Amino acid sequence: MKATYMFGAGDVRVIEVPAPTLQEPTDAVVRIVRACVCGSDLHPYHGMDASTEGASMGHEFIGVIEETGSEVRSLTKGDLVISPFSFSDGTCEFCQEGLFTSCIHGDFWDTPGMGGAQAEAIRVPYADGTLVKVPGVSEDSPLLGSLLTLSDVYGTGWHAAARAGVTHGDTVAVIGDGAVGLLAVLSAKQMGAEQIILMGRHQSRTDLGRDFGATDVVAERGDEGIAKVRELTGGRGATKVLEAVGHLPAYEQAYGIVRPGGVISRVGVPQYEEAPIGFGSLFGANVSLTGGPAPVRAYIEDLMPAVLDGTVNPGRVFDRTVSLDDVPDAYRAMDNREALKIMVTP
Amino acid sequence: MKATYMFGAGDVRVIEVPAPTLQEPTDAVVRIVRACVCGSDLHPYHGMDASTEGASMGHEFIGVIEETGSEVRSLTKGDLVISPFSFSDGTCEFCQEGLFTSCIHGDFWDTPGMGGAQAEAIRVPYADGTLVKVPGVSEDSPLLGSLLTLSDVYGTGWHAAARAGVTHGDTVAVIGDGAVGLLAVLSAKQMGAEQIILMGRHQSRTDLGRDFGATDVVAERGDEGIAKVRELTGGRGATKVLEAVGHLPAYEQAYGIVRPGGVISRVGVPQYEEAPIGFGSLFGANVSLTGGPAPVRAYIEDLMPAVLDGTVNPGRVFDRTVSLDDVPDAYRAMDNREALKIMVTP
Repeated sequence: MKATYMFGAGDVRVIEVPAPTLQEPTDAVVRIVRACVCGSDLHPYHGMDASTEGASMGHEFIGVIEETGSEVRSLTKGDLVISPFSFSDGTCEFCQEGLFTSCIHGDFWDTPGMGGAQAEAIRVPYADGTLVKVPGVSEDSPLLGSLLTLSDVYGTGWHAAARAGVTHGDTVAVIGDGAVGLLAVLSAKQMGAEQIILMGRHQSRTDLGRDFGATDVVAERGDEGIAKVRELTGGRGATKVLEAVGHLPAYEQAYGIVRPGGVISRVGVPQYEEAPIGFGSLFGANVSLTGGPAPVRAYIEDLMPAVLDGTVNPGRVFDRTVSLDDVPDAYRAMDNREALKIMVTP
Repeated sequence: MKATYMFGAGDVRVIEVPAPTLQEPTDAVVRIVRACVCGSDLHPYHGMDASTEGASMGHEFIGVIEETGSEVRSLTKGDLVISPFSFSDGTCEFCQEGLFTSCIHGDFWDTPGMGGAQAEAIRVPYADGTLVKVPGVSEDSPLLGSLLTLSDVYGTGWHAAARAGVTHGDTVAVIGDGAVGLLAVLSAKQMGAEQIILMGRHQSRTDLGRDFGATDVVAERGDEGIAKVRELTGGRGATKVLEAVGHLPAYEQAYGIVRPGGVISRVGVPQYEEAPIGFGSLFGANVSLTGGPAPVRAYIEDLMPAVLDGTVNPGRVFDRTVSLDDVPDAYRAMDNREALKIMVTP
């Protein structure tokens, strides 16, 4: 079958690999119906060391169950399913608490040895714990785009707002106008935020952000951007800051605009390890820092009804669709900011 | 009057200065009845640049109102009062929310231009907003030691546990066996923590920690200490880690022993600005970081009843009492770990 591999920075290829098969009785093999390219895929696209084996790519998908192992109980051939961007057994103490990304048997799809989702099919470990069945939706439904966002970007934006504890009356600043940032805006709106300031520079994206609920847009960055947000918040800063980028300047922006006693919630994968957290950044003003990889498995069932009944349409973040053969070009287009988020139809 | 000034690292002197007077109609002048030396006073004791003017010292006190400005409403001459380690107007939006340390008119006692509490008297700005009256207690009550802890160390230990959200069933690790660490143990116990692991190396202190509620003591530090805490928590780590030291190794210890999805709450004043917060330390496991200078003004009234009726005895952290003239020696003794916390009777 065809699958997407990355062999180094900027080097993405669609190659022929053996089709996946069941390896464990808890596995399922899923035929991919929709996948996509993630903003976080661009991090290795910029920095991956060259490798001859390459790395399988893609961690977001909707698919149809092709085959299940003997211990899979809740799924059968033909079911349409959504997968979170990490797999999890569904039974360990962390899964029971909803922290599926810390599952003691689970891991991210991007882990070496796992297949990627930018492919024709994929083996899913712990199928019962990982996959969520979508009832009554066909393979060509116009809802597939919105359902696909439950695999990562919507759940990740939701996680940013949920970990921050966004609630009625909050002043929320969202840093980043990528798909996750825009869906963090949507999530903050759903949780009752009063003012939502979106920090981003791409007008087509920030316009969509306004549709999702942003009340203000700040295009400036650095000190200018900080001054602008402070001006918009009566000099005090935002009670909740959702950081959906992952680069150090975005984090520096975050503690520059957060209100004393407020929360910074990060969901952009940090491309740094050390950063300021002392008296002058977080401590002095009792600012809390939270966030991490979103346990989207915990959110799919809760968020799905409003997607299915059309209350929300997070799939609007997809502004291009490509076939599997065109995935390398999709990376290029997302990296150049020609496209916001690209859907893949194998 | 006599007052304590620091003129550089290791250079503490009791000198003669003009007695404080009312400067604003919202001021009070307070005669100091009890003050003390704080673990955080040791930070400048180690690192302060030499200065000819010196810095007034002391930010914890109980005293008696001597004189009040014309706009002071709630206090009169002769009232016994507790002061938090920062002053605050009591009316701004942050004070209204309980975040007194971010008061828009307030500041720390250690701010240049303010008097210190290791002295015979002190001018208190915003007396109505800052001071808390203690009803029915005399100047020679045996409760003064415990009441004095409400000025900083008990409220700060409480803040660590409160910001972490310690609740019934929690596994709490407390880093540091100073007065704040020990009172963080007491606070965690009051909030219903099930297991309380105290990390400290001074047996007389950790014994007091056991009296306050610690179920386990870990004397080891670094990787050995981390391994020990993990062993005591079934390999998972502590759900809440209270960091009451302020040095970088204590923070590194904190993220080494925290459970995925858990919280690190810092109240030790960070002696560093940059520290690890990326995927490998906080982000990957969805660990939250919180804390800051404790708004102890918010806690005094809540914590006082159990002190007054003897339910808790946080004053046990005082293991020595000195006169004002002996304050320089008190710094030395606390720095040498000869004394845990020293009370000053002017």
